[in-house]
Amino acid sequence: MLQLEEAVALLREQVEPVSQVEEIPILNSSGRVLAEDGRAAVDQPPFPRSPLDGYAVRGKDTRGAGKDSPVNMKVVGKVYAGEVFSGSVGEMEAVRIMTGAPIPQGADTVIRQEDSDRGEGEVLLYRESSPFENYCCQGEDYKAGTVLLEAGTVLGGSEIALAASMGLDRVRVYQKPEVGVISTGDELLSPGEVLTPGKIYDSNRYYVTGRLMDQGLSPAFSCHCSDDPEEMASLIRRLPQSTKFVITTGGVSVGEKDIMHEVIRLLHARELFWRVEVKPGAPTLAAVFRGMLLLCLSGNPFAAAANFELLARPVLERLTRDLRWGLRKERVILEDDYRKPAGARRFLRGYTQGGRARISQRNHASGALSAFLGCNCLLEIGREQAGAGKGEEVWAYLL
Amino acid sequence: MLQLEEAVALLREQVEPVSQVEEIPILNSSGRVLAEDGRAAVDQPPFPRSPLDGYAVRGKDTRGAGKDSPVNMKVVGKVYAGEVFSGSVGEMEAVRIMTGAPIPQGADTVIRQEDSDRGEGEVLLYRESSPFENYCCQGEDYKAGTVLLEAGTVLGGSEIALAASMGLDRVRVYQKPEVGVISTGDELLSPGEVLTPGKIYDSNRYYVTGRLMDQGLSPAFSCHCSDDPEEMASLIRRLPQSTKFVITTGGVSVGEKDIMHEVIRLLHARELFWRVEVKPGAPTLAAVFRGMLLLCLSGNPFAAAANFELLARPVLERLTRDLRWGLRKERVILEDDYRKPAGARRFLRGYTQGGRARISQRNHASGALSAFLGCNCLLEIGREQAGAGKGEEVWAYLL
Repeated sequence: MLQLEEAVALLREQVEPVSQVEEIPILNSSGRVLAEDGRAAVDQPPFPRSPLDGYAVRGKDTRGAGKDSPVNMKVVGKVYAGEVFSGSVGEMEAVRIMTGAPIPQGADTVIRQEDSDRGEGEVLLYRESSPFENYCCQGEDYKAGTVLLEAGTVLGGSEIALAASMGLDRVRVYQKPEVGVISTGDELLSPGEVLTPGKIYDSNRYYVTGRLMDQGLSPAFSCHCSDDPEEMASLIRRLPQSTKFVITTGGVSVGEKDIMHEVIRLLHARELFWRVEVKPGAPTLAAVFRGMLLLCLSGNPFAAAANFELLARPVLERLTRDLRWGLRKERVILEDDYRKPAGARRFLRGYTQGGRARISQRNHASGALSAFLGCNCLLEIGREQAGAGKGEEVWAYLL
Repeated sequence: MLQLEEAVALLREQVEPVSQVEEIPILNSSGRVLAEDGRAAVDQPPFPRSPLDGYAVRGKDTRGAGKDSPVNMKVVGKVYAGEVFSGSVGEMEAVRIMTGAPIPQGADTVIRQEDSDRGEGEVLLYRESSPFENYCCQGEDYKAGTVLLEAGTVLGGSEIALAASMGLDRVRVYQKPEVGVISTGDELLSPGEVLTPGKIYDSNRYYVTGRLMDQGLSPAFSCHCSDDPEEMASLIRRLPQSTKFVITTGGVSVGEKDIMHEVIRLLHARELFWRVEVKPGAPTLAAVFRGMLLLCLSGNPFAAAANFELLARPVLERLTRDLRWGLRKERVILEDDYRKPAGARRFLRGYTQGGRARISQRNHASGALSAFLGCNCLLEIGREQAGAGKGEEVWAYLL
């Protein structure tokens, strides 16, 4: 049977990373993917800057200054942050200066006001300073021409601040690709409807849609379809050409109502695979229709959820260029025992922290959703293993 | 001087957790805080359910069935998922059943179709099954009355799916509180403006606003104000009463343009503290004006950023009830050396993974923003320590 990693590689090959770019205000760019390098146009700071409130002087003129041996200087001007002192500082001269103001020409250090008598016409300085001791060099933070933000960066508060410091009020980011979610199953009602005998509420469409929204990806459509293959095929045929990726749930197994095989035939879609060696969710089906990738997950809620994480996320990572979609896995020490028959890789819901992991103590049946409560990872019990015990090392896939 | 933890406690005392609630569609609830317990109204599944495609029978009638000794049963009906078989299953009777369909009255297990001849009027079953072997009990996932989602839960894909399975199409969540951001500093230009001598671009307002947006909290206002205390006081006086928390940057030190002290006086606001024993950002100032908390951060970009994380986030955690704002800290092993004078707790930008941490190799000056690149934590070097070396354990505050 197809291995998980092979299925992932096959799926990722079918999608092209989004290439369309849009320009948006920097303050709206949290969670977006930068489409071009952010290069500094000017040095930051753009001029030598005072790190203190005090007096800008020539360091050599302060030599020997101390509490009992102040030097007396002539105050030739005053400069606040945002202003420029147009003159220059000569021998035994000082300019009153505030934090962030440009250090005037001629001066090479600043004596802080606490080490002076705060004089206005003349000032006594009680401390010496070597040149450039209290002096923020031009370009100290970064130099003009430096690429500070690389294309592909996911923007957050720090990157937004850095872009702002470079003067960028708008940024070019990748557009969000159009993806869709369709659940199937005649037994499904939408939440909010009155429950009738034999029916249950749809949760798969809500899982997949909710997970997309967790990363800010609002699906272009999210709907339910009956178990009529003609109807499902027609729904897919009518999707806009711009749709890149459609995730469906239900109808992939071998029963009479497992309509997705027939839907693929009706669409003349190119089947990529059916069945992947994972548990739960083995009967996952994938196909390509008019350049649109169809990933058809099992209708069992945990199977749909686990395979969304294992199979759909790597596709979304490539499609959106948003690296947060990538599944990060790490080795963890199991603190519970779990028994299973050997023969298939088994994924369980779990919780990991500080290199240790616990298996959810709730019902693991693939139809059960409540086992997700408080979980933050999928734990993998390998193919060859007939379970895993306390103290064993396993892989945790972080959700 | 006031300790960081004392400052945090004092700040948190000034805000009440948001109490206003709104009802929103469940599909729009990703990242929102649930305002009331989500309790299951009915068992899930609401009826005993078939886990397989096959034949629903009485287990005892299959006793002894095997490949060479099939049992022959009469097929008395058929039931698909979403339907109900109105009759019941008697001795040596079977109902054709699909995955997810309710198990008919009288039957207590399901023989999978692969273990039958798939007969329609009659069926040969090649395998025996004990009662309830292939049988999903009513309420197997959860029972009616169970609280599955507790008030205060931050909703994400899993919780949205669970709520949907309970039939909830709308949920009551806490409203987002009104918070605001004001940067001060006559030297600041907005990104997008033409850089003129002595000026730099504002980045602090972008950091704070961007960080708020990272958690989906769009500020009610975000603006820049001149270094005129009257103007700043007037701006604050005109804010709506509904504003709970205002974060300002700049003007908190001891220079002539450190206007925030005067602003507090003009507003007759109640000062909570000035100066906290942390580096960078010691001169942080806090006050309460008409029930609105003012947190006035230093204008140095890294000082503003670090104190947003250390001081503002715990306030936001309490105010929004969104636990993601809480700062998580963990002990990590340092992989770099860092020297500092003893006497103040020093926070550095760093990167941590798997219990180890590196200090950002870029410029640590509090005016420098580029040192944030690639960082995911603040590393604390303690008060008594004159630095920390490779192999030492320090606290990492995760960003």
